[in-house]
Amino acid sequence: MTQAEKLEALRNIMRAHKIDGLFVPRTDEFQGEYVPASAERLFWATGFSGSWGTALIGQTRAALIVDGRYTVQAAKETKGTGINLLPPDNDKLAVFLARFKKGSILAFDPWVTSVAEARRLHKLVAEAGHKLIANRQNLVDAAWPNRPAPPAEPIYNHPKKFAGFDAKHKLALIAETLKNKNCNCVFLTDPHSVAWALNIRGSDVSHTPIALLRAMVFKNATARLFIEKSRVLRPIAGHITLEHPDQFETSLRQLGQKKQTVMIDAGVCPEAVRAILAKAKATIIEHQDPCVLPRARKNLTEQNGARKAQIRDGAALANYLAWLDEHARTGSLTEIAAQAKLEVFRRATGQLEDLSFGSISASGPNAALPHYHAIGKTGRTLKRNEIYLIDSGGQYRDGTTDVTRTIIIGEATAAMKSHNTLVLKGMIAVSSARFPAGTTGIQLDALARAALWQHGFDFDHGTGHGVGSYLSVHEGPARISKAGHVVLEPGMILSNEPGYYLKGKYGIRIENLLLVKPPEKRKGGDRAMLSFETLTFAPIDKHLIDEELLTKAEIHWLDSYHAEVHHKIGALVNDDTRPWLAAACASFTRRS
Amino acid sequence: MTQAEKLEALRNIMRAHKIDGLFVPRTDEFQGEYVPASAERLFWATGFSGSWGTALIGQTRAALIVDGRYTVQAAKETKGTGINLLPPDNDKLAVFLARFKKGSILAFDPWVTSVAEARRLHKLVAEAGHKLIANRQNLVDAAWPNRPAPPAEPIYNHPKKFAGFDAKHKLALIAETLKNKNCNCVFLTDPHSVAWALNIRGSDVSHTPIALLRAMVFKNATARLFIEKSRVLRPIAGHITLEHPDQFETSLRQLGQKKQTVMIDAGVCPEAVRAILAKAKATIIEHQDPCVLPRARKNLTEQNGARKAQIRDGAALANYLAWLDEHARTGSLTEIAAQAKLEVFRRATGQLEDLSFGSISASGPNAALPHYHAIGKTGRTLKRNEIYLIDSGGQYRDGTTDVTRTIIIGEATAAMKSHNTLVLKGMIAVSSARFPAGTTGIQLDALARAALWQHGFDFDHGTGHGVGSYLSVHEGPARISKAGHVVLEPGMILSNEPGYYLKGKYGIRIENLLLVKPPEKRKGGDRAMLSFETLTFAPIDKHLIDEELLTKAEIHWLDSYHAEVHHKIGALVNDDTRPWLAAACASFTRRS
Repeated sequence: MTQAEKLEALRNIMRAHKIDGLFVPRTDEFQGEYVPASAERLFWATGFSGSWGTALIGQTRAALIVDGRYTVQAAKETKGTGINLLPPDNDKLAVFLARFKKGSILAFDPWVTSVAEARRLHKLVAEAGHKLIANRQNLVDAAWPNRPAPPAEPIYNHPKKFAGFDAKHKLALIAETLKNKNCNCVFLTDPHSVAWALNIRGSDVSHTPIALLRAMVFKNATARLFIEKSRVLRPIAGHITLEHPDQFETSLRQLGQKKQTVMIDAGVCPEAVRAILAKAKATIIEHQDPCVLPRARKNLTEQNGARKAQIRDGAALANYLAWLDEHARTGSLTEIAAQAKLEVFRRATGQLEDLSFGSISASGPNAALPHYHAIGKTGRTLKRNEIYLIDSGGQYRDGTTDVTRTIIIGEATAAMKSHNTLVLKGMIAVSSARFPAGTTGIQLDALARAALWQHGFDFDHGTGHGVGSYLSVHEGPARISKAGHVVLEPGMILSNEPGYYLKGKYGIRIENLLLVKPPEKRKGGDRAMLSFETLTFAPIDKHLIDEELLTKAEIHWLDSYHAEVHHKIGALVNDDTRPWLAAACASFTRRS
Repeated sequence: MTQAEKLEALRNIMRAHKIDGLFVPRTDEFQGEYVPASAERLFWATGFSGSWGTALIGQTRAALIVDGRYTVQAAKETKGTGINLLPPDNDKLAVFLARFKKGSILAFDPWVTSVAEARRLHKLVAEAGHKLIANRQNLVDAAWPNRPAPPAEPIYNHPKKFAGFDAKHKLALIAETLKNKNCNCVFLTDPHSVAWALNIRGSDVSHTPIALLRAMVFKNATARLFIEKSRVLRPIAGHITLEHPDQFETSLRQLGQKKQTVMIDAGVCPEAVRAILAKAKATIIEHQDPCVLPRARKNLTEQNGARKAQIRDGAALANYLAWLDEHARTGSLTEIAAQAKLEVFRRATGQLEDLSFGSISASGPNAALPHYHAIGKTGRTLKRNEIYLIDSGGQYRDGTTDVTRTIIIGEATAAMKSHNTLVLKGMIAVSSARFPAGTTGIQLDALARAALWQHGFDFDHGTGHGVGSYLSVHEGPARISKAGHVVLEPGMILSNEPGYYLKGKYGIRIENLLLVKPPEKRKGGDRAMLSFETLTFAPIDKHLIDEELLTKAEIHWLDSYHAEVHHKIGALVNDDTRPWLAAACASFTRRS
């Protein structure tokens, strides 16, 4: 079917249902970053393949809401469909809604829409003078012939040697929260929470080792997992009972009949779940998913796992960078070939389960797009005297990695060095920050930017995101950004990735993962301060540094970091990487 | 009456009204920082004289909620009354509320309680299983014999040569907001907004030149000011009508009868006003007071006024610091005598209307209390080899000032120098920051702290607050602190006052006022950046600086600042201050 035929099919079904407008979000029933092929409804309906967006399809008009990352891509992908692009701005959506005839019937699927999002849509639609209805039959699915079946891969255990605690311990922890909030049970509607709480993993989506499952946890520290028995190959812990996913709604209604008090997280719980519970007269307590904070605070086993995984991954990256140093300047290496070679080095560790996200292998001007992915068979060719940026990561059983390095192939211009050094200054400022208990990510964000700001530069993304433990590479709730309102706590792992982007020319980003260390009292100081332990070990390209822009303390940081890189990964890299690594990690000599 | 007799009288009246518990806030009908003697109800009922707090008085128990600033003072002032001190923490209040018999009747005065605060109290009281009633007769007033009359000082005009715009212009601006929000009128229940919008000033309270008045502004850009005619000595602009304050409630009810849509600000509007409007069936739109942002963004006239006022004030401060340099070391100067002398220098400018707040003149260990005020006839004596901190400001018709300097009398220890230099580094980092449009105060706050944090220090107050233009020295909405969620906009004036406090030993704070400058594009930069113009010009004590802790850029900042201080105030200081000023402003010589 062409895109026009798809839209027409959808509109026919909407007419049959007397629906004037339909919201089609990128999110699926599990509200995650990655969705399986069966849930690529936004892509099917509009042709837009990005990871975030919502369409509003009317009979004679349609809009697609995408953020700044995707403006160019969405325009290209929806060309000729008559779809208007809108930024994620309630006022702009209000203007678009005003074009519908007053009193229009707009619909959304409450299974793929969270409670919070449904509230937002209700408010906007009511203000525009229309009516919003929850339509539990997904109309895209109805219009979509031969929609792929939802994934149903086997699940497997994430053993205590990686997880640190067994499921019993975690369920007891969740039960504590339930008791404190006078709840009988909580719905884990986020598969990452199900994976964390029950120590299970799966392969239903790319890059994140989760199964798309839901569970209930009760205040007696038992759990009910909704899954087809055929997907469970090995015995599962005794305090976890299995129930067929078809029984999910019945279970919800039974909770209401039993007058239970049920905790849901409005940010990840489907609106349909809330509505069923409310109709069944269950008492609903809205509260943050109780797995979120303990999952973010990595335990000692997970911390050790992360250290090992990052060193292993850093050695693979160093092998790649050494190889690149020889092959990039030939002028025949392409972005796709390059990222494939990096994957080969990662696979050679023998422990790579998956990449933790689609690699960003970006040469020259492509690096100016922070969320670039090479397309086609080759992507662009790496060229001499240009910048090359590689942002990539791996999923290992003991940890999830995410690292970015920016290198110069050949000779860097003074401007390139200056931009890169300002980015590096921000990266060092965050890495070496100390801060008191209670500090949030927004408070530290400016440390990554202050040097860039001084020179009239900035980057349009956050400084850092949380990272899971053999889970999502983008894990909440903490982050270092304008939206970082969560307190940074010991054990959290965050990325630190300031950047600089010069449209049409080049882009720079340097990213290490950091582990939040417990507060320590420093000699002579009054108060214990938290700080970061750097987890990522791979050389930072010294050919892109303008030493004059660095303070003594920053040069000292860089020398110490490189010494540690050499110490940690030196024995793990390939023999032919060693001389390159030694040079890459050699100390700066103070010239002044 | 003794404090015990006062409490007993209040409890008798509560019993007569069948009220089991009464909330008594420090705030009055106008929700301001300073209240007149007639509204010092919290002080009358509890003996606590601080500027922020709320009591909950029961028949057999009472609690006083105060923040960290006032813990020591409140304990001293309420000693023997049986009043429990509580921190401002809802959970702690909930525990205290639980001690009342279930179903108790608690009361508050809706005239002295904002809409937002009333909502908070309602929620807390309901959760504790009690009933909260709005009692429009203030029971403290009923128990208080010979309560002073409320102030009714004459008002005077704040002419365009200081205000920049006339009242007509400002009313038109407010009318724009009303039209955008489909409102017929707004209640200005904050006297600072009345003063700003109508270009009037008064002297009903200390330190802030306002009259305690309310006004309505209509969407035709006219205003109704509620005031006794006897207080208006000079003609007032034609588009402002006067009405007796007794007519206020009638006016509110009339709005309802006329089916008007009325804007109120829940943060500063008395709950009584909301209740009267709601009862009269007016449509209520809650919205930030429309004066807040235009008042905060000083216009060019106000900016020029601020520059002049700060230079005048800086010269007075320099006269004082020079005088102090000679007299402090005698060992006979007291804190009270010192602050009085500073006021003499400020009055000698011939333009001081009032101090902008009670001076903090703190010697030695007293300086470790950020909100210290010398008490008794003398306060402590300034001693040799001790630190002295002076935080003070003036109200001038063209601007409001606020400045802190910390000096060493005699010889500083290495630790004092180190602490002071870390504070100075933070002060310089904020002063010289550049930042993109959209940046909020919380983002910059860490710049003031990063150097202190590195060494295990911090300070337990915000870095900076907004400052009014011949209005409150603490003016919202922008601030540089953890609570600074308002975007910093050109024209805003903010303090920059990091500190360090060593309990029982000494305290350090260095404070300048900063004006937010419009975005400027810098050569070589991509983006226009906002920055700060320093408004305060007075020497920073070089005897308290450890040069080794400063970067070249920081030394350059300090030298440039001192050169500018000398240039700006050199001609204004007294003859015998000149040699001292020249030395105080002399450049650092690089020793390395």
